[in-house]
Amino acid sequence: MDKILRINVGADGGPETKTDPMGDYAGIAGRALTSAIISKEVPPTCHPLGEDNKLVIAPGLLSGTTAAMSGRLSVGCKSPLTGGIKEANAGGQAAQVLARLGYAAIVLEGKPDDDTLYKIFINKDGVKISTDNSLRMLGNYDLVDKMKGEYGDKVTCISIGPAGEMKMSAASIAITDMEQRPTRHAGRGGVGAVMGSKGVKVIVLDDDGMSMRAPKDPDKFKAANQTWVAGLRKHPVTGEGLPAYGTNVLTNVINEAGAYPTKNFMWGRFDGCSKISGETQAETETARGGKATHGCHRGCIIRCSGIYMNKDGQYLTKQPEYETIWAHGGNCGIDDLDAIAMLDRLDDDYGLDTIEIGAAIGVAMEAGIAEFGDAEAAINLVKEVGKGTHLGRILGNGAAVTGKVFGVERVPVVKGQAMPAYDPRGVQGIGVTYATSTMGADHTSGYAVATNILGVGGSVDPLTPEGQVELSRNLQIATAAIDSTGMCLFIAFAILDQEDTFQALIDLINSFYGLSLTADDVTDLGKSVLRNERDFNARAGFTAKHDRLPDYFKKEKLPPHDVTFGVTDEELDEVFNF
Amino acid sequence: MDKILRINVGADGGPETKTDPMGDYAGIAGRALTSAIISKEVPPTCHPLGEDNKLVIAPGLLSGTTAAMSGRLSVGCKSPLTGGIKEANAGGQAAQVLARLGYAAIVLEGKPDDDTLYKIFINKDGVKISTDNSLRMLGNYDLVDKMKGEYGDKVTCISIGPAGEMKMSAASIAITDMEQRPTRHAGRGGVGAVMGSKGVKVIVLDDDGMSMRAPKDPDKFKAANQTWVAGLRKHPVTGEGLPAYGTNVLTNVINEAGAYPTKNFMWGRFDGCSKISGETQAETETARGGKATHGCHRGCIIRCSGIYMNKDGQYLTKQPEYETIWAHGGNCGIDDLDAIAMLDRLDDDYGLDTIEIGAAIGVAMEAGIAEFGDAEAAINLVKEVGKGTHLGRILGNGAAVTGKVFGVERVPVVKGQAMPAYDPRGVQGIGVTYATSTMGADHTSGYAVATNILGVGGSVDPLTPEGQVELSRNLQIATAAIDSTGMCLFIAFAILDQEDTFQALIDLINSFYGLSLTADDVTDLGKSVLRNERDFNARAGFTAKHDRLPDYFKKEKLPPHDVTFGVTDEELDEVFNF
Repeated sequence: MDKILRINVGADGGPETKTDPMGDYAGIAGRALTSAIISKEVPPTCHPLGEDNKLVIAPGLLSGTTAAMSGRLSVGCKSPLTGGIKEANAGGQAAQVLARLGYAAIVLEGKPDDDTLYKIFINKDGVKISTDNSLRMLGNYDLVDKMKGEYGDKVTCISIGPAGEMKMSAASIAITDMEQRPTRHAGRGGVGAVMGSKGVKVIVLDDDGMSMRAPKDPDKFKAANQTWVAGLRKHPVTGEGLPAYGTNVLTNVINEAGAYPTKNFMWGRFDGCSKISGETQAETETARGGKATHGCHRGCIIRCSGIYMNKDGQYLTKQPEYETIWAHGGNCGIDDLDAIAMLDRLDDDYGLDTIEIGAAIGVAMEAGIAEFGDAEAAINLVKEVGKGTHLGRILGNGAAVTGKVFGVERVPVVKGQAMPAYDPRGVQGIGVTYATSTMGADHTSGYAVATNILGVGGSVDPLTPEGQVELSRNLQIATAAIDSTGMCLFIAFAILDQEDTFQALIDLINSFYGLSLTADDVTDLGKSVLRNERDFNARAGFTAKHDRLPDYFKKEKLPPHDVTFGVTDEELDEVFNF
Repeated sequence: MDKILRINVGADGGPETKTDPMGDYAGIAGRALTSAIISKEVPPTCHPLGEDNKLVIAPGLLSGTTAAMSGRLSVGCKSPLTGGIKEANAGGQAAQVLARLGYAAIVLEGKPDDDTLYKIFINKDGVKISTDNSLRMLGNYDLVDKMKGEYGDKVTCISIGPAGEMKMSAASIAITDMEQRPTRHAGRGGVGAVMGSKGVKVIVLDDDGMSMRAPKDPDKFKAANQTWVAGLRKHPVTGEGLPAYGTNVLTNVINEAGAYPTKNFMWGRFDGCSKISGETQAETETARGGKATHGCHRGCIIRCSGIYMNKDGQYLTKQPEYETIWAHGGNCGIDDLDAIAMLDRLDDDYGLDTIEIGAAIGVAMEAGIAEFGDAEAAINLVKEVGKGTHLGRILGNGAAVTGKVFGVERVPVVKGQAMPAYDPRGVQGIGVTYATSTMGADHTSGYAVATNILGVGGSVDPLTPEGQVELSRNLQIATAAIDSTGMCLFIAFAILDQEDTFQALIDLINSFYGLSLTADDVTDLGKSVLRNERDFNARAGFTAKHDRLPDYFKKEKLPPHDVTFGVTDEELDEVFNF
């Protein structure tokens, strides 16, 4: 993992590849690497779909090793959705495979002259790029089947569906899972549109003949990994809650807390929650012969995913995540688990961010395009997106565009990106993260829900502004570091609460690379990532005025607690004072 | 003209009116007043369609007097199109009538609870507001006919069409002309959407029983007006070119200069220009029994408008302006004058900014929604806007949204507002104005075309960056002042070239108000207006990074001169150093 593969899709006569040494980027990986490359090499005011933008795909520091949970992939670019820097993070097999193939990053550069579609095949022998217009407008599922037919059953795919080809700002990049299904997505910020603008439909990876990356100190690495695994298994969230019910364990929890955004952020509780909760979902999956506990990549020991079968016991989709179930469920007033699973399947197939699309449909429902609670209408709306009808293109460009087109005032976005499944009035710490994150409204970039609601990493009252800025700041720093390791963010629950588990993570990195990093170094890494990202955004024209929630969260009281967002602008401006 | 009428449409139990003295706003009018009120009273980060935005309608300092050319109306708000401050300026009868009724401004405030439509009637006896849902989705022409039926043939209307009701960001506010037709529009920035968000369909003005505003020194005022009129009549632009051919005199001029943006800013010359030029237009109008020389309000002596009849000799629309003929013509590759006149009529009826809609159609054509040059398709697209279909809502929200929805990279906008009829590479001074204006891309806010192409106010080479910053700066300052007087901007041609005509304008103001202003005071007024506007925009989150043209104007050469926009970012940042 000591080289960067650069593919200039705009070269005369077709794509040109070159392999660079790490150079200035030596020693960093994952989000640290994607954000460093974007911040250094992409002009901040360029058009996100133009030749000057770059798409960077990078495994983390520990990806491709035997360290548990190290399968996360970072995808970076200037975002077509926000206009700022973007790192979208995904599970699946690609990070491990790419790392074992030796690449610290793939960088797609330039812009093709015409609308030719390319597929890129990478294995131990090198890189092969071919034109393949027969892939045009294929859904991710059919596309992956076709690639398996061509390259064998064991390949890993990084691909876009029709949404990416249509350059929609809600287009995701799909990553195949252990079963070679395109169910893991770098979802947010329209990264799929940037891949589409580069004319690249799919990157097929085959690590046959490559071996696990070897640590500098194998014994210490093995020992650290044992402590690491034991720590994750003993924490109630990573050892019990997530394996049993997946991320959807949160539906009942957040609803109970009165912070479950219902019908486009009108209420904090949803009547239909029990019908779509993790408990109901696990029961349904098990009853139909699916799986309630399943990993998204090899080396995962939390296994928060699952397999969702339809009523006839046939595979429909992977277990939809909490945020998906919220976006297509409570946010749209829908309490039909099968309909939500179908929406998840469609999103995965078209290549769409479930959060952005669910939020866009919520806004469209507020505009009267469909009734809240009408599951069939929601399914039809997502099909419009896949077909690229005019309505579909509106929705496929996200909640902000949908709100603008239909003249809706209540649009839950920050920096143009839709808020996820936690109302910022009911979980004020996550409100601070939504407002100030370099990514636009994003729960994963500083998951204050942990401390506000779950009692992880201490306890801070979710309904008052006190302590939220410090909480969000520390979480944003820690997250930027974790996103650079290749580790799944869910390890945060254990390392926030258990010092020895945090130390095991540092030991894993140190023994692998022969370093002697401390906890402070990890913090410094996180800070440097955020500084790069903030610097890019500032040069793109973002100011403190963009680190704000929409006004109505400060004015409209959220039932049942009848609370507004209380963190002041001045306090928000303190988040990045570190 | 010593009071401000405030109408709170969000009051309990329906709209509430109050009449305030001028207070802090004493001594200013027009754009100076609208921008002062918006800057002081509207929270810069509020939603443009929300209760905190205000719509301010203000005549100028000299409106309602016998001074020639004093019929311009300023309409201000936070713009739904740009997110910044907006002053849209219109001719027609309203400024004169409103001033004679004694109002320095009407301010629409708050937001109604439901979608009730209001009409507001103002005459010498006061203000009457009534609910009238029968007006819903009426075009401006039918609406005005209905108002004439109710209130008499001589009323003046300020109204929105379906586009404003649908809160489209390209929605205009229509003002009736001397023939009581809704042909004059405060076009830019979506001011019609803000009026729509206030639930106000029409403001009907009747100045029966009111007299001309009386100057403090009638003799001096009369003498100044004589010098003023003589000055306007002797200048070749205001005395010959504009009366004979209207603003469309520019089609051949700008095309000859190689700065005529053709097919979405691809080329600087358009083959079909002679078919849609002012010369052809005047000939057509005269031959069909229309008028080639006509004023848009009483007291106009330039009379750059006209009356356009269809092939059967029946009224179709007022003489479309140069920018309209460009937007729907050359920009879309269309050289059919009758089709363009029909598009103008439809825009006026639906209440749409012709520039923004033409630019949006150009972008849609680049996206393949219709063929460049297909006039019938363009007419159908505007009809989609009027009907509010999904495609129509996309286009009706302007070029930036259209580009985003269809994934187009070449979108000619600044701050979200479409560029008008002068390519910034071929007229680099107007490029500086587009980039830096507080309004988004706007030719009227600093019309450097005058000096770059027409040789008015000196001469600056249009194709090089030298001198453009100073030129644009001085014009932006002068324009902000002129827009506050109620004077038509076309007086600028004469006052730039003729010192005595400029002095006559100052004498008009001084003798009317009993003041002793100097030219420096006028400049200071312009500067203070711009400072208010820049301050609002900064507080809304705009930075120097937003004072830029899209990158492709710096990279793509414009034929036939093969020139790119050469003014550097550093130079652009000097525009407001005054």
